[in-house]
Amino acid sequence: MPAQTTPDPLAHPTREEIELAAVLHALSDPVRLRMVRGLAGEGERTCGSFDVPVTKSTCTHHFKVLREAGLIRQRQEGTMRLNALREDDLEVRFPGLLRTILQAGESEAA
Amino acid sequence: MPAQTTPDPLAHPTREEIELAAVLHALSDPVRLRMVRGLAGEGERTCGSFDVPVTKSTCTHHFKVLREAGLIRQRQEGTMRLNALREDDLEVRFPGLLRTILQAGESEAA
Repeated sequence: MPAQTTPDPLAHPTREEIELAAVLHALSDPVRLRMVRGLAGEGERTCGSFDVPVTKSTCTHHFKVLREAGLIRQRQEGTMRLNALREDDLEVRFPGLLRTILQAGESEAA
Repeated sequence: MPAQTTPDPLAHPTREEIELAAVLHALSDPVRLRMVRGLAGEGERTCGSFDVPVTKSTCTHHFKVLREAGLIRQRQEGTMRLNALREDDLEVRFPGLLRTILQAGESEAA
């Protein structure tokens, strides 16, 4: 019997599959940039732990964009979906990129 | 008589008005990123001088997006529209950002 091929609802690009255009697009939204800033240097966080002015479904959508771009890793634990920044993968793939963008975001917000 | 207020067809944001989200969005398109790479370290170039797989009107559109985001300065000289990268403005506004993104684009293309 062939292996089941149900598509993974939480598919992630491998490190090598992370594309610059997708990363820049994902970070070009101020809410998503704020979420990524909130994940930097932290462990795993749930959608609801972010103080952002969007509904839960919009939050879920933003995290999907971030996951598909390779910026975060998502995993399901019971009813909780946990999100973590892929800092190591991004640093290897595009050295200095994430840090520089987060710094730019901070200097703009200051 | 009040001064004429025809909108400037080639309006540019000031250095302080350049927004991170707009810069990242502008660079999240592979053709625009290639155009910016082609302008880096160069002087002024015309649309037609770029070897990109798009029509002239698409090229014009991409340059408009880049100008409105504050990435390039455009000026009209007779029938020619000249484009130059605002490297100094960008470096002051978001230190290291443009260089890091261009390097990431090169390592991806390699």
